Amino acid sequence: MSAEKKQTTSTTTNKRKNEPSKPKTQKEKKSNAKRPESTKSAASKVTSKTTSKNAPNPRTKAPKRNYRKKAKAPALPVKITCLGGLNEIGKNITLIEYEQDAFLIDCGMAFPDSDMLGVDIVLPDFSYVLKIKDRIRGVVLTHGHEDHIGGLPYLLKEFNLPIYGTRLTLALVESKLKEHGLADKAQLHVVNPGDEIPMGTMAVELIAVNHSIPDAVGLAIRTPNGYIVHTGDFKIDFTPISGDVIDLARFGELGKQGVLALMADSTNAERPGFTPSERVVGESFAKLFGKAKNRRIIIATFSSNLHRIQQIIDAAMRDGRKVAVSGRSMINYVSIATELGYLNVPEGVMIDIDMINRYPKDKVIIVTTGSQGEPMSALTRMAFSDHRQVQVGPDDYIIISATPIPGNEKAVTKVVNELMMRGCDVVYEKMYDVHTSGHACQEELKIIHTLTKPRYFIPVHGEQKHLHKHIELAKSLGMSEDRVLISDIGKVIELTPEKLCVNSTVQAGRVLVDGLGVGDVGSIVLRDRRHLAEDGILVIVATIDPTEGVLLSGPDIVSRGFVYVREAEQLMEDAREAARRVLEQCIYHNPYDWNTMKTRVRDELSRLLFQRTKKSPIILPIIMDV
Amino acid sequence: MSAEKKQTTSTTTNKRKNEPSKPKTQKEKKSNAKRPESTKSAASKVTSKTTSKNAPNPRTKAPKRNYRKKAKAPALPVKITCLGGLNEIGKNITLIEYEQDAFLIDCGMAFPDSDMLGVDIVLPDFSYVLKIKDRIRGVVLTHGHEDHIGGLPYLLKEFNLPIYGTRLTLALVESKLKEHGLADKAQLHVVNPGDEIPMGTMAVELIAVNHSIPDAVGLAIRTPNGYIVHTGDFKIDFTPISGDVIDLARFGELGKQGVLALMADSTNAERPGFTPSERVVGESFAKLFGKAKNRRIIIATFSSNLHRIQQIIDAAMRDGRKVAVSGRSMINYVSIATELGYLNVPEGVMIDIDMINRYPKDKVIIVTTGSQGEPMSALTRMAFSDHRQVQVGPDDYIIISATPIPGNEKAVTKVVNELMMRGCDVVYEKMYDVHTSGHACQEELKIIHTLTKPRYFIPVHGEQKHLHKHIELAKSLGMSEDRVLISDIGKVIELTPEKLCVNSTVQAGRVLVDGLGVGDVGSIVLRDRRHLAEDGILVIVATIDPTEGVLLSGPDIVSRGFVYVREAEQLMEDAREAARRVLEQCIYHNPYDWNTMKTRVRDELSRLLFQRTKKSPIILPIIMDV
Repeated sequence: MSAEKKQTTSTTTNKRKNEPSKPKTQKEKKSNAKRPESTKSAASKVTSKTTSKNAPNPRTKAPKRNYRKKAKAPALPVKITCLGGLNEIGKNITLIEYEQDAFLIDCGMAFPDSDMLGVDIVLPDFSYVLKIKDRIRGVVLTHGHEDHIGGLPYLLKEFNLPIYGTRLTLALVESKLKEHGLADKAQLHVVNPGDEIPMGTMAVELIAVNHSIPDAVGLAIRTPNGYIVHTGDFKIDFTPISGDVIDLARFGELGKQGVLALMADSTNAERPGFTPSERVVGESFAKLFGKAKNRRIIIATFSSNLHRIQQIIDAAMRDGRKVAVSGRSMINYVSIATELGYLNVPEGVMIDIDMINRYPKDKVIIVTTGSQGEPMSALTRMAFSDHRQVQVGPDDYIIISATPIPGNEKAVTKVVNELMMRGCDVVYEKMYDVHTSGHACQEELKIIHTLTKPRYFIPVHGEQKHLHKHIELAKSLGMSEDRVLISDIGKVIELTPEKLCVNSTVQAGRVLVDGLGVGDVGSIVLRDRRHLAEDGILVIVATIDPTEGVLLSGPDIVSRGFVYVREAEQLMEDAREAARRVLEQCIYHNPYDWNTMKTRVRDELSRLLFQRTKKSPIILPIIMDV
Repeated sequence: MSAEKKQTTSTTTNKRKNEPSKPKTQKEKKSNAKRPESTKSAASKVTSKTTSKNAPNPRTKAPKRNYRKKAKAPALPVKITCLGGLNEIGKNITLIEYEQDAFLIDCGMAFPDSDMLGVDIVLPDFSYVLKIKDRIRGVVLTHGHEDHIGGLPYLLKEFNLPIYGTRLTLALVESKLKEHGLADKAQLHVVNPGDEIPMGTMAVELIAVNHSIPDAVGLAIRTPNGYIVHTGDFKIDFTPISGDVIDLARFGELGKQGVLALMADSTNAERPGFTPSERVVGESFAKLFGKAKNRRIIIATFSSNLHRIQQIIDAAMRDGRKVAVSGRSMINYVSIATELGYLNVPEGVMIDIDMINRYPKDKVIIVTTGSQGEPMSALTRMAFSDHRQVQVGPDDYIIISATPIPGNEKAVTKVVNELMMRGCDVVYEKMYDVHTSGHACQEELKIIHTLTKPRYFIPVHGEQKHLHKHIELAKSLGMSEDRVLISDIGKVIELTPEKLCVNSTVQAGRVLVDGLGVGDVGSIVLRDRRHLAEDGILVIVATIDPTEGVLLSGPDIVSRGFVYVREAEQLMEDAREAARRVLEQCIYHNPYDWNTMKTRVRDELSRLLFQRTKKSPIILPIIMDV
């Protein structure tokens, strides 16, 4: 892997420490807003050392706004449109617009709900993005999780836009784009916390935050109407494993200068208290490893949680164990992170999974995917004796270092049960502190709200209940009802110093990916799949000669997923007889009216089958002529 | 409802308080075991006032056994076979056998897993029960939950056996049997805690326990080898809402006399501590009702949790609110329980759901089904504006008084989100104490283990992880490895004073009910449904004239659940062309070899479709001749 080398290490951004800040007047901003061509070229060519010097930058010394006084001259609104990530978990993508300038924050994917049968992944609907693509200056990524970067390959197939993100984030993006054969033409620009990315009349500054993947950032979006702070996914970890503590001071500084609006992660807004530091998990590992004694240790966790993997490596070093890695995505993350230096792997610690049996059990730790009970994951394959290199048994001490994501509870339990049946000791309960969340709980959210003191608040990243709880939290800190807004995907939030409102919507929704098809599975196909899944299908075929008015062949009946046919021969025979009677009547009356024939056959069989079985399979009459 | 009156209020059982206990010798027991005819008639006719006086009854003064000394004369084993409820949650049914006598404990059903597509309910496999039906003396029910009584109608359709249970349990059974048209011939025998039911050479005594439904009992099974204590589903509630506190003293008394084996509920064996009393929920309601202020209160809970419903009624009385009930099963439970006196409903408190709009919002409480987010339940219908009488909005204060059963998390969240979108206030979090479990946590389990001091321990009612944790708990109390056993459904546990082991298995498994069909959906149908659900189906129909060796009509292609056909016309046309080419080749070579035709068409289309779409629908070639 040489992810790093291939990235255009950006000269396009301006480090705030080195750059003299330049107070901006309202006039400058307006004239800037009227120069769409120049800003467009600046953003697409990205030569921002110059660009950003010319661009107004009120960041450090921006005059404190007094919104009330300026209310007389109505400002043009900044428009914020979440195209995903609201009222859902996943596919985070937010569009920020001001007049002719626009940019995206993140471009994620989601995993299908259980009712989206056969669907592989879910994408945001890019229609509106494509409609205004000439105005889009780029996409800024907050971190490298799938729900923030997974949609990029699909967007890039439609149009090529500059991509900004931290080093690790872009390395993960690049690996993903390679799979889709898109890496060559992608414009990847590495930016660092403190850097500012020009976006026409706007600019985006990156602020370091803590999260369950390294190199995560929040954003300070400088707009002509003031700063919008977007936390990205974050938590506050005073003792992080790698990287810095979240830059709380910068959030505070922005708050002092005046923040127009805060958009903050709502994932854990239901949870009181403070999310424990990632370091707590490491301490727990140390204790549990002692209990493993002379057994092999297998730990399942999220492959993107490099902090966790680092702590496993550290604990392995202390105990003199070797670490092997299992699962495609685990191998991928570990190799990228090691190469870029996000994992500190001392010489000789890592061994190939094929080598594990050359070491005594008590000298091995296997780090594996499958902490969510995913059917094809390495841990699941171990549990069901379907893993090529790892056979588990009473000599294995297994730690599931994760909490089931809602919807995965039963899948995880199934794997735990199966492992226990094979005699493994399995540690999975919350009480053992084998996992901590990457998202801020209520007390952490209060810190960010208090530091940024926003005029308006828009909760993001969460289902309705999370957004709702986050609003309650903001109100408990003194925010008034008219300054908060729960939006929905596609709603265009308009934001001026005077007002926060929604006046319009744009197309938004979900696009389902099934196999190679993007969007070829929609509501009709899903409805059919659900019906097929519930009751199966019954096909009735007949060939008629309309000129003679006779039934030439059939009707024949074939069913799938309905009943076990060998035990329902009489039922099938009766159905065939009923279909024949109906068809003969129809042919007698009008041998050319196939629609009536099909409808009457369907109705008759539907009635008969429901009466006899209380089931309603899809009934598919096919009538052929010669 | 006159459930009570129709039940044969049993004169067949002997109250232990009124009956002189009679020490039993080994000889008597043996002679008893040799009289299968007399015991059989005693059990089937059930005139046990006499029967049980004649029957040996070692209960109160049974000599303390010294198992080691008797080891020289090998005893015949008592056989315990769980036909459900082990390594799964639900369909609890246990068979106890001693020589020619056998009886069942419970006869439950389970709800289908998410991979049992289209299945309505899951039953135990009754094959072995039916095989030995002449030896079965009856079924004893521990309580009235579906997972303990739901399978009865299906068993009763196969053979009629005496049913023993407490008053409420049998009223619920009777209501269920009526739906199946089986109530008339059922032999329902009401028994009370303290009563003993003769089962040939064995006898079963009922012991009051606490649970989330009134009238729950544990069992003391008197066998020639000693007592087996079965807890049933239980918790320890020192301040129950109705009924008595669990009869801990009786468990202790049995322990003093000597308990051969304990079978105990493992549902909460993972959870440390003590399950809070049901009364805690009532206190929480009182607080929350205050917060509801002038809004309507809607509470969703389990319809069988009559303790909970009683507390809602009590709180409503205090606040001067009327109570309306919504949801079919809620109405059913409330009406049965009110009639039998298990709910104390003062005159004028209950109103019909149609009347709610005649009262101010702050004078109404609606108790509803749907606490698990079930798609057709009343609360779900309210959330999605599909409830005939209840329209929800900002004037509603909604309490979900339940914890999602594993697998239902997302469904519950969906309902919560939807209710919040309509402006309702929704209380659902654990921290508000709106629910407490009906099952014993670790400290309660320790109490039962310590009181009964069993020689052997067999954890029941739970998945592998629960059974496993329960074994750990028993060991932590000093139980040795050779005295505990994790069994599985169908395994025949043999139990003598000297040994606990499994030497054989009987047929056990699951029978799927879909519509009227019991068992007509098996693994093949389910496999097809899963395939249909994932990828849909493609039917290719052609008519050939084999004598002429020509394709008369078609091939035509129809698909369902595959892709949206209007956008895939070219693909369908290409598939049709490919099928035609293959068919024409086949007809040319051998117009009578249909199997080859079908196989080749299937293979060709399979290849083509996967190449073009990366999907693999079921391909169903139908070839007709004239």
